[in-house]
Amino acid sequence: MDDKNKLINVDSDSSSSDDDEQLLTKKPPPSLPASHSNETEASTSRNQPQVSENGTFDTSIDVPPLIGITADAPNDVTTLQNGSHNVEQSPEPVFHIRSRTSAAQINKIQYESLDYDVCDNALFQDEQRQRLQDRFSLRTNVIRWIIFILIGIMTALIACTIDIVIEELSELKYMFLKSSVDNNVPISDREGGDLALPFLWWILLSIVPVAIGASMVTFIEPITAGSGIPQVKSYLNGVKVPRIVRIKTLAVKSIGVITSVVGGLAGGKEGPMIHAGAVVAAGISQGKSTTFVKDFRIFKAFRDDHEKRDFVLGGAAAGVSAAFGAPIGGMLFSLEEAASFWNQNLIWRTLIASIISSFTLNIVLSAYHGLKDFTFTGLFNLGKFDQPLSFEYFELPIFMLFGVTGGLLGAAWNYLNMRINKFRKRYVPWKVGKVCEAILVSIVGVSMAAGMIYFINDCRPLGNDPTIHPVQLFCEDNEYNAVAALWFQTPEATVRALFHDPPGSHKILTLAMFTLVYYVLSCATFGLNVSLGVFIPVALVGAAWGRLIAMLLFYLFPAAQFLHPGKYALIGAAANLGGVLRMTISLSVILMETTGVETSFFFPLIIALITAKWIGDSFNEGVYDTVIEVNNVPMLSWEPLPQYKGLTAHAIMSQPVICIKRVDSAHYIYDVLRKCQHNGFPVVDNVEGDRRSKGRVCGIILRSQLIVILLKSLYVENKHFWLPETTIQTFRDVYPRYPSIKSVRPLDRKINYTVDLSLFMNHSPIRVNAHDCVPKIFNIFRALGLRHMLVINNENRIAGIITRADFIYK
Amino acid sequence: MDDKNKLINVDSDSSSSDDDEQLLTKKPPPSLPASHSNETEASTSRNQPQVSENGTFDTSIDVPPLIGITADAPNDVTTLQNGSHNVEQSPEPVFHIRSRTSAAQINKIQYESLDYDVCDNALFQDEQRQRLQDRFSLRTNVIRWIIFILIGIMTALIACTIDIVIEELSELKYMFLKSSVDNNVPISDREGGDLALPFLWWILLSIVPVAIGASMVTFIEPITAGSGIPQVKSYLNGVKVPRIVRIKTLAVKSIGVITSVVGGLAGGKEGPMIHAGAVVAAGISQGKSTTFVKDFRIFKAFRDDHEKRDFVLGGAAAGVSAAFGAPIGGMLFSLEEAASFWNQNLIWRTLIASIISSFTLNIVLSAYHGLKDFTFTGLFNLGKFDQPLSFEYFELPIFMLFGVTGGLLGAAWNYLNMRINKFRKRYVPWKVGKVCEAILVSIVGVSMAAGMIYFINDCRPLGNDPTIHPVQLFCEDNEYNAVAALWFQTPEATVRALFHDPPGSHKILTLAMFTLVYYVLSCATFGLNVSLGVFIPVALVGAAWGRLIAMLLFYLFPAAQFLHPGKYALIGAAANLGGVLRMTISLSVILMETTGVETSFFFPLIIALITAKWIGDSFNEGVYDTVIEVNNVPMLSWEPLPQYKGLTAHAIMSQPVICIKRVDSAHYIYDVLRKCQHNGFPVVDNVEGDRRSKGRVCGIILRSQLIVILLKSLYVENKHFWLPETTIQTFRDVYPRYPSIKSVRPLDRKINYTVDLSLFMNHSPIRVNAHDCVPKIFNIFRALGLRHMLVINNENRIAGIITRADFIYK
Repeated sequence: MDDKNKLINVDSDSSSSDDDEQLLTKKPPPSLPASHSNETEASTSRNQPQVSENGTFDTSIDVPPLIGITADAPNDVTTLQNGSHNVEQSPEPVFHIRSRTSAAQINKIQYESLDYDVCDNALFQDEQRQRLQDRFSLRTNVIRWIIFILIGIMTALIACTIDIVIEELSELKYMFLKSSVDNNVPISDREGGDLALPFLWWILLSIVPVAIGASMVTFIEPITAGSGIPQVKSYLNGVKVPRIVRIKTLAVKSIGVITSVVGGLAGGKEGPMIHAGAVVAAGISQGKSTTFVKDFRIFKAFRDDHEKRDFVLGGAAAGVSAAFGAPIGGMLFSLEEAASFWNQNLIWRTLIASIISSFTLNIVLSAYHGLKDFTFTGLFNLGKFDQPLSFEYFELPIFMLFGVTGGLLGAAWNYLNMRINKFRKRYVPWKVGKVCEAILVSIVGVSMAAGMIYFINDCRPLGNDPTIHPVQLFCEDNEYNAVAALWFQTPEATVRALFHDPPGSHKILTLAMFTLVYYVLSCATFGLNVSLGVFIPVALVGAAWGRLIAMLLFYLFPAAQFLHPGKYALIGAAANLGGVLRMTISLSVILMETTGVETSFFFPLIIALITAKWIGDSFNEGVYDTVIEVNNVPMLSWEPLPQYKGLTAHAIMSQPVICIKRVDSAHYIYDVLRKCQHNGFPVVDNVEGDRRSKGRVCGIILRSQLIVILLKSLYVENKHFWLPETTIQTFRDVYPRYPSIKSVRPLDRKINYTVDLSLFMNHSPIRVNAHDCVPKIFNIFRALGLRHMLVINNENRIAGIITRADFIYK
Repeated sequence: MDDKNKLINVDSDSSSSDDDEQLLTKKPPPSLPASHSNETEASTSRNQPQVSENGTFDTSIDVPPLIGITADAPNDVTTLQNGSHNVEQSPEPVFHIRSRTSAAQINKIQYESLDYDVCDNALFQDEQRQRLQDRFSLRTNVIRWIIFILIGIMTALIACTIDIVIEELSELKYMFLKSSVDNNVPISDREGGDLALPFLWWILLSIVPVAIGASMVTFIEPITAGSGIPQVKSYLNGVKVPRIVRIKTLAVKSIGVITSVVGGLAGGKEGPMIHAGAVVAAGISQGKSTTFVKDFRIFKAFRDDHEKRDFVLGGAAAGVSAAFGAPIGGMLFSLEEAASFWNQNLIWRTLIASIISSFTLNIVLSAYHGLKDFTFTGLFNLGKFDQPLSFEYFELPIFMLFGVTGGLLGAAWNYLNMRINKFRKRYVPWKVGKVCEAILVSIVGVSMAAGMIYFINDCRPLGNDPTIHPVQLFCEDNEYNAVAALWFQTPEATVRALFHDPPGSHKILTLAMFTLVYYVLSCATFGLNVSLGVFIPVALVGAAWGRLIAMLLFYLFPAAQFLHPGKYALIGAAANLGGVLRMTISLSVILMETTGVETSFFFPLIIALITAKWIGDSFNEGVYDTVIEVNNVPMLSWEPLPQYKGLTAHAIMSQPVICIKRVDSAHYIYDVLRKCQHNGFPVVDNVEGDRRSKGRVCGIILRSQLIVILLKSLYVENKHFWLPETTIQTFRDVYPRYPSIKSVRPLDRKINYTVDLSLFMNHSPIRVNAHDCVPKIFNIFRALGLRHMLVINNENRIAGIITRADFIYK
């Protein structure tokens, strides 16, 4: 038990528990203090996450955890005094998507869980029965389809907007820079000229957007930092990441990604688009916006975590699909990387969202680019290979070596990135510092690029390069500067160039330097407080070294005709992506779909990817998982961890547990809610007086439900609480921002009123025996997406409670 | 309660159960008869499936159910007398993969479940702990990878062999027929000539292979009939389909598919190859063959249903991959159609198996076809489109109409096929009749084809058609008969021809007749007692009508240049496949991979497929699901059925339950095993005498474990059974063909010996409360792949037991 926990004023909790053996031991009845001193501090702001007061998830006081969120508090408060809950955590829960909260909250905030398990109470069953009768079920299904289609369309529209704005602004920026260079380096005097002015313009045009983006992210919505994929993944696993699916988040993220890409940071727009898709999905499916306090009164049936999760998965797929123009890739990405729960229907709906999204995107972009005939050509936003790529069997070992290289470089990248972010976390904790840091990285990037352009003399004849604004700088007439061509465009356009430029478009030195510079830059960029994805920069580094190796090989074996540099750039990009992201199937399909290569070329891609993943996995985890792990997000893995072997539920459960009687006094409930922050309470039957933990478990009720019951109920003569015309909709109306207990009037004068929970409690809580082995109960917990699991003894009396945290931190 | 059940001699079972309410009601102690009259009949042959005697799954006596298998008997025998278990079943559980069993068994045989839930007993935990220490875990993982790679290679080799043999034999057959036609229809006398002889040859060359194949399937291994995909799917869902993964099955299936395709039946080799992959996977992973009574003593750690399931999934994927040359398609097929349980690691291994399989296939086939340079080109076994297919937006409605057509035709096909098979089931129950039926269908097919060739005059100039053996028959010199070209090759080659023949290769009448004839033929063929898949004939019908519609449209609008007939044939094939099979993603990827179309053409394919699936789903189920349903296979769906709503566990559980004490008398166990056929018994604690059902549940033990314990145990002085050096391996050694209780010596003189089950029982049985709602417990059952689920009351005493059958038939 460390000292910090003692600061928390935890009253010795009244509820007692009994074991099988202590069945008849009498314990003192609970005494609940009416007020609780630090309640006020705990929930100061309405939209702030709730704060668990028991300190179970304490992180050390000097390092604030990244996302300011409450713990899904295990159902106990007294535990703190016996020290059984010491949490093993890295002393530095890190970075870049955190919100600074007041010092007092630092060691209390953590993650809550989502309620993916449907609360199957009497009200819900009534609704179900009603639906069965009036064919509501069919209607619900149709509405669900419509929502998925809407998600696809909306996501694509947002992606289009981001895409077009980025392209237009970038073109303006680089056109201006080009003319600035041309004006200041007179063609007549190629070796002279004043390059200071264009350089300063370049810096200015980079730091202004970056500063805007970084400030918005830092000061308005810190959750929008980074790619958003780790956050979406955590959400889909059942971790409540606050504010992740709000409209404000979407707005900040969109502007953030536009400014960062236009600012020339080493990042891509793909990750943020996936996050955008998730927000769109959550927004549309709920039919209301809490940001705008507007309830459209539609889609009410979908207002719970379980339904929302499925829509968010579809939104993420639509986002990938819109980002890459890759519908199959989008669906596979959702399955491989994002989803924690699958079933056949879900795949099916996700696919529709992807398809619709890619279709909409294609139509809008075709119209925007003014194509006369609306021939569907696919998006190919990494450029279509003119002729089919083929390969020979003896190239397979080369592809494997590419995979090995990619795996090693990727693992090193992940490690470096983690170190940089830990450093950043420790030494740049202030908001202004974070903005300055982003500006600094931007300046360093521009300087390195300018240095490369200045010192490397790589002139190529005009007409070969598809770059829109070739820069002549120091070159002969009819030539352009190949180094400047690499830098004077968005990273995505550079990937395209490396895939498709004809052989001999660059010097070896150019590419070698470019690889090195971009490797370092991308590594330093991911983790800044800006909205940027990691896909494009990683692909760019891979494409650069892939092309470089092909050039070196061609230099050594000039007779080797198969050394198509674009092909090797593609394989290099795949290998590097595999090494950093550790995805295989979805990545190869995405690369296939964005470059239009034939399905037979799938084989070399997957060889490179798999090798890279294997090599990389022997060193560390993929970059998204690293972010998740470093942030101490309590993700549940697919399979039980090895250390669970041999443990029983008794060893990991939290106890004692606060119980509520099926018909309990309103005052007791009110006090419990004020006194502790637990989110689920077992409901027990048949006990007299206050010996609640002696009762047999008959259900579970959530904190949010209890608050709604206390809020909505009327006091009638018979001293029972009574809820007029309560339906399941009463509870859905306040989803997802449930009121706090502070919004309930004190009940001082109604001390004898009772409340009957029969209608509201979930009658079928998942109960496991205290002697059950942990791997098995983990499987249940994981498969059903539970939030609480009740541990009972052989008498069906409560023995403890297991939440997500108990699996992770024990 | 129908009369048949009364024939079964069911002794009133001794075990009694109590409710919450009847806690103190005394019931008479159980009296177990020492012998049981019809035990002998119940398990006559060693390898025959066990027979459940309780009749719970009775099918009406006139129609034997198709696969002769035991029920996973719900744990009760007395229930039969109170009639609470009336089973709603279609009176005609149908067809084509049944084995006729003796009349006495007819109303007893049904399906057992597999034990996908790992038995987590003390022995298993010992092994786990040991593995953790000696890095055995890593070794196991490496071995697992090796097995998946071996599965890929072996599956591909078998697929190659089948492929090559079919191609060579077909070529011989059709070359001979062609020369026979040419010889008998002299060129000088085009209108005359004697066509009787070639016709007879054709019939002979068709019925001989068909007769061989049908006889092997019927007399040697009836499970090999059909495509095998429904069986593999059932297996992966957790239903024990006996003999499905045996080497004998593989042999019969391979020869069966070769003979049927060579015989010219309307079927393909793809489904059987998937089944072959599954057998290979099961065989390799177990490291032993029960058919050859050979134990290689390797891969022992993988001898349980759970591990085997994952390998079988990989094998199925490798089979698809080898059948179509489509590695991504193979993996997606496994996920979409076959798998009932997924996780990320499994996807990953499945993909490797697919890749390796497709790679091996490519190398072997390249070598066989004598390609000089080993350029990897993909297999494209439906032929590569020469130029990229493109489409315009206004074609999308046409594709949707294709989808509607495909959906309607597919739903009709499924319905017709079901009717035909029910008819067949009822009126052709004899084995010889089944063989004759196959021969009859073959003769009808040949006659219809011959009639088409004879009556339709469709001559085309030579040089346009890729057919290897053009038949001149009735045509001018330099022309060939386009009708004969359709029929004188394997169905797969005809699909290829319809995709790639240049415009104007057929008359409208030719294609119309061909569509009609093949629609009927394929419908009559699927369900015959031969090994044949349904993919190719369905694709062929679709390609034919797709091409036909394109021709009609072109006839109406000669100016429409976009009407590439091959493109429309492809869309038609996709739509028809979608309408019959109701798969979407995997089918479109498979079609893409086998025809090498570009990823941008994915969009029209999926539009057609989705529309077809939607339309079809509103009429009936996909053909595989129809087969499964008609056979009354107790498949668990992905989500709880609507009728579960509002039910509690109490309503569906079987009770009373036979319990065993933790330390029970050997004699009692022996008698229980002899007396009933249940497969799982709750183990209870702390009871005196025979009031077992009053005990608190502390575990579950399987029938197979009890038999092994009785078999292996020694009798020692202290009157306890004692198992010398028992490890988990003792149980794995007899997997999967556990001995029957009859192999245990009678225990008459050791009446007082007891056996302690603590070491062997599963300490963590899944327990649910009798008041829990059914949708939730279904989710647990489904997600964990359970076989037994114990229902307990509030006192943790046994209230009932739920098995797969309770969810399906109640």
